[in-house]
Amino acid sequence: MLIRIDHVGIACRDLTATIAFYESAFGLTVASIEVNEAQGVKEAMLHVADSPAGSSYVQLLEPLGPDTPVGKFLDRRGEGVHHIGYGVTNITAALAAVGATGVRLIDERPRHGSMGASIAFLHPSSMGGVLTELVQAPPT
Amino acid sequence: MLIRIDHVGIACRDLTATIAFYESAFGLTVASIEVNEAQGVKEAMLHVADSPAGSSYVQLLEPLGPDTPVGKFLDRRGEGVHHIGYGVTNITAALAAVGATGVRLIDERPRHGSMGASIAFLHPSSMGGVLTELVQAPPT
Repeated sequence: MLIRIDHVGIACRDLTATIAFYESAFGLTVASIEVNEAQGVKEAMLHVADSPAGSSYVQLLEPLGPDTPVGKFLDRRGEGVHHIGYGVTNITAALAAVGATGVRLIDERPRHGSMGASIAFLHPSSMGGVLTELVQAPPT
Repeated sequence: MLIRIDHVGIACRDLTATIAFYESAFGLTVASIEVNEAQGVKEAMLHVADSPAGSSYVQLLEPLGPDTPVGKFLDRRGEGVHHIGYGVTNITAALAAVGATGVRLIDERPRHGSMGASIAFLHPSSMGGVLTELVQAPPT
């Protein structure tokens, strides 16, 4: 079902500074910067690698305010890994299959994610503490 | 410098149960199970995907005891993402380059990791709260 590790989602307090850090330390480059009002974040996708199954990224997330999910995460846990995104070929089928195994879904239906992807989150309470995201890349 | 997301390292209390969960929910398969006494863990590598730049895994980590790094992590944070591993071509060169940018190294020299890899950890205090690992896969 999973075809790649699509991205590592990292919560940070200062997106500009954290982008600069990843550029400097690892030579990563910015593929996109977007504001996602629905999720309450400003986010950057930093390109790690391409493969036949799609690209992999470090996703940096700065909250738009303290009462957003990422804002609350930073208050509770501090900066660090917020979620893991895995690539799938067909997110509707993947979501149905995962849900059928008893995993608690945050999103019953796919919604819009970074860079035109369709995404859905799985609840960390049934994922061993890992907020997990399924990602179907947009048609190329 | 980074050529893939090599693995997501996830701390769990029960390796057997967590392997069974990932097999059931996502259809992942076990590539290896090893005990690493030096790191105080029993670990499983679950295969996610292959690419020309190497394979990607979910790495599940069960501590060998409460006084190990992963045991202390579980006490402090509970189950969840413990670290992120990125693939590099030459770990000695990568470690020198990253260290030269001011990142605090946990390992000044590479050591033995899962499945014959050479690995080195970077300190979360200079990585925005993310315990980060560099991984050079063994020669094939």
